[in-house]
Amino acid sequence: MTAYTLGSLLYEGKAKRVYQTDQTDLVAVEYKDDATAFNALKKAQLAGKGLMNCQISARLFELLEREGIVTHYLSLQEPNWMLVKPVQIVPVEVVVRNIAFGSLCKQMPIEPGTPLDPPLLDLYYKDDAYGDPLLTDARLERLGVLSASQRQELEHLAMAVNTSLRRFFAEIALELVDFKIELGFTTDGQLVVADEISPDTCRLWDRNVSGDAQERILDKDRFRQDLGGVVEAYGEVLKRVQAACPPPRLGK
Amino acid sequence: MTAYTLGSLLYEGKAKRVYQTDQTDLVAVEYKDDATAFNALKKAQLAGKGLMNCQISARLFELLEREGIVTHYLSLQEPNWMLVKPVQIVPVEVVVRNIAFGSLCKQMPIEPGTPLDPPLLDLYYKDDAYGDPLLTDARLERLGVLSASQRQELEHLAMAVNTSLRRFFAEIALELVDFKIELGFTTDGQLVVADEISPDTCRLWDRNVSGDAQERILDKDRFRQDLGGVVEAYGEVLKRVQAACPPPRLGK
Repeated sequence: MTAYTLGSLLYEGKAKRVYQTDQTDLVAVEYKDDATAFNALKKAQLAGKGLMNCQISARLFELLEREGIVTHYLSLQEPNWMLVKPVQIVPVEVVVRNIAFGSLCKQMPIEPGTPLDPPLLDLYYKDDAYGDPLLTDARLERLGVLSASQRQELEHLAMAVNTSLRRFFAEIALELVDFKIELGFTTDGQLVVADEISPDTCRLWDRNVSGDAQERILDKDRFRQDLGGVVEAYGEVLKRVQAACPPPRLGK
Repeated sequence: MTAYTLGSLLYEGKAKRVYQTDQTDLVAVEYKDDATAFNALKKAQLAGKGLMNCQISARLFELLEREGIVTHYLSLQEPNWMLVKPVQIVPVEVVVRNIAFGSLCKQMPIEPGTPLDPPLLDLYYKDDAYGDPLLTDARLERLGVLSASQRQELEHLAMAVNTSLRRFFAEIALELVDFKIELGFTTDGQLVVADEISPDTCRLWDRNVSGDAQERILDKDRFRQDLGGVVEAYGEVLKRVQAACPPPRLGK
C-alpha cells in the first residue's frame, strides 16, 4: 500500500516520533502512548493513546482540508502512523480559547467556564527551556520568527481552524473549550497546520453530560487532574469522530 | 508651609502609604523604608530608602512636567512625603525596556545586556493574586480596564517618559536599562503618570564603571541579588539627580 521506506529519526517529541523517508516530500509520524503534562514533570504510559490520537487527527486534518484549510497531513498509515509533508515548524504555540479554563483563569480574573466571545487567541514561545512563555506582539516581533504578514496569516488560520472544529465538535455533542495548534512552513513556503489535533491538544467537554463539570471532561485534563478514565475518554471522542467522518485515506 | 490636614489612610502598598487630606484635590504620599522583592517573598528595612526615593521621584516628576508630561505630582513635603493629585490607578504595570535584563532573559532567548531598539514595552496585570501576569493586546481588551484609545495613550505616555528619563539619566552618567511606571486617571479623566520613579522602579547602571557588570548596578537589583550597598547605591543616584535638577517645590 505504501511506496516509501522509513529513514532516520528526525525528531522525537513528548507524544510523537518523526521519521525521514526515502522520499524528500514524505515524512512519517508515529504517535506514541506516552502522556506528559506540566512541562513533562508528570509522565505516564497510556496504552492505545497513540493509536487513538492518530486516528482522530487523521480525520480532523481531512475535515479541515475539506473546508479549505491546508495542513501537513497526507494520509493515515495504520494503526498509529501517518504520512505528512515535511515542514519547518514555527516555534510558536497557538492557543485558541472559546471558554475560559486552565492556566488562563490563574492569570486573569475570569471564572472557569466563562464563554469568551470573541475567542481569545494566545501565542506562546515554544521552548521548554524558557517555560513556553506567553508572547505579546512586540515580543513576537523581537523573536524574529515570523514577519508581520506571516503572523496575520497564522492568526487567520488559527481562527479558521477554530470555526471549523467548533462546528464539527458541536455536531457530535462535544464542546471545544480550547485547543493548541502548531503551524509550519512547507518547502515551498506555505504556512500550514501541522502537529496533531486530538484530546491531547483540545479541551473537549461532553455536551450530553450535565451537572458535575469533571464528568464532562473528555481530554488530557483527565490525566492532568488525575480524574481517571483517560483512555476511555479518548475512546469516546474517537467513537464520535469516527461515526461522523468518512474513513481516512490510506497509503501514499 | 502646608495648608492641609492629614486624613485617613487610603492605601498601603509595599513601599508607600497614601493618605487622604481635608482637601479633596490633595493626597499625601509617605515613602517607606520597606524593601520587598519577588512578590514580597523577600523583605527588609533599608534606613533612608523612603526619603531617597521620595527626593528622587519629586525631581523626576518635575523633570517630566517640564517636558510636557503630566504626572500626579504636586509638591515635595520634606523629608519623605509628597503631595499628589488623587488618581484612580490603572491596574496595569507598564514596563519599558532599553536593554534586555531580568525576567525578560528568562522568557526569551536574549542575552542579558542586549540593547533593545526599539525599546520593548510590556504590560502586566497588576494583581499579586494572579502573579502580575504579562498581558497581550487581547487579554488587556478582555480585562476591560482601558479602551483602545486609552491604551494607545498609555503606551504613548510610557514611551515619552522613556525618552525623557533616558536622556536625563545619560546626562548624569546613568544607563536607564528599564523601568516600571503606573498610570492613573485624575478626577477629570486625564491619564497621568503616577506612583514613583526611583531606583526601586528603574534599573540604572553606572556608566562610569566598566568591567564587572554587578559593580555598575545602582538600583533594586542590589537588594534582589544580595549585592550589598543598596543604600549607598540609592544615595549615589540621589546625589547625581540632585546635582542636575533644581530643588523641588515645597508645600502646597
